[in-house]
Amino acid sequence: MLVLITYDVNTETSAGKTRLRKVAKQCVNYGRRVQNSVFECILDNAQCIMLKSILKDIINEEVDSLRFYYLGNHYKTKVEHIGVNKGVEVDKPLIF
Amino acid sequence: MLVLITYDVNTETSAGKTRLRKVAKQCVNYGRRVQNSVFECILDNAQCIMLKSILKDIINEEVDSLRFYYLGNHYKTKVEHIGVNKGVEVDKPLIF
Repeated sequence: MLVLITYDVNTETSAGKTRLRKVAKQCVNYGRRVQNSVFECILDNAQCIMLKSILKDIINEEVDSLRFYYLGNHYKTKVEHIGVNKGVEVDKPLIF
Repeated sequence: MLVLITYDVNTETSAGKTRLRKVAKQCVNYGRRVQNSVFECILDNAQCIMLKSILKDIINEEVDSLRFYYLGNHYKTKVEHIGVNKGVEVDKPLIF
């Protein structure tokens, strides 16, 4: 399923920047970074539980906000984009 | 239906800050700002087309990115939150 993860963190502090970098590093294992702090991940239930737990440990729950949106398996018609950085499909094979 | 709108804009410039403020102003007419540049809006089809067109005119398509995620009408189980600013339900009446 597609899980959209949005992360709100103050990147004016170096600690915030570091947390964003760590969150991004975990999320891109399962998908792509579509905006600076928005990630589209393809996860099964077990991966989702694991990733949530990892991210929970990275963020500072007192100041950061992390949201998960479950878009299911038929998500291609549920996403639209305007502007730069359309990126690539998360589940498309990469051909070199 | 719930439409999630995520806006990626460089807020280090005053023009970027202004665009974010304008986008937020339009989006909160239809819902709430759940993160600095993430908005949950309740829209019917006509409102959605209108809002998209308004936002398209505000943003700078050459440098900004705007994404729309359509979460349908049964979205309550599709959203999860960790951290600060949980906010209020978009379709809950405000009681003063």
